[in-house]
Amino acid sequence: MGKRDFCPLTAASEVLSRKWSLVIVGRLLEGGKRFSELRASIPEISPKVLSSTLKALKNHGVVERMVDDGSPVKVKYRLTEKGLDLEGIVESLEEWGEKWKNRR
Amino acid sequence: MGKRDFCPLTAASEVLSRKWSLVIVGRLLEGGKRFSELRASIPEISPKVLSSTLKALKNHGVVERMVDDGSPVKVKYRLTEKGLDLEGIVESLEEWGEKWKNRR
Repeated sequence: MGKRDFCPLTAASEVLSRKWSLVIVGRLLEGGKRFSELRASIPEISPKVLSSTLKALKNHGVVERMVDDGSPVKVKYRLTEKGLDLEGIVESLEEWGEKWKNRR
Repeated sequence: MGKRDFCPLTAASEVLSRKWSLVIVGRLLEGGKRFSELRASIPEISPKVLSSTLKALKNHGVVERMVDDGSPVKVKYRLTEKGLDLEGIVESLEEWGEKWKNRR
């Protein structure tokens, strides 16, 4: 069994398969957010997991970090073009999650 | 920060956030498959991870296991109605994965 060629679904899964990746993308679709704002919008997530997931999303080019060098310095996270292109998928997942929430 | 109400995106993420969940669903959209057929179609996955991911997908009601009690007994995995309802999302993810494969 040789290594398969490029599989777009595997590639997409690698970007989005961390537990909170999709939820973070969903929150950032509302607009750029500070770390504390993201944390407040996802109470179940620990700072450590939020930080590592943001880093992974940044490495995959889905999220970018903006530094407003006022005083004090302010850091915001926002979706890149690649990240914004996930909007339709996130909406469909929300609909799927809602439709099947009490059904197996 | 109290526990949030039901978040459909978090619910969907919980079902699909294992590394290979979406890829397995993608393969099963082609039709029911035996364990060996699934393994052959995803060379990068280990039997242990394939087995635990199938179990999780079964627990979430996305996959079901069919036993053909001929001789020898044959076991196939197929998508439930809930699983089949992911088809549009899987297709969109494939398009997204293809579109952004070399772009950040």
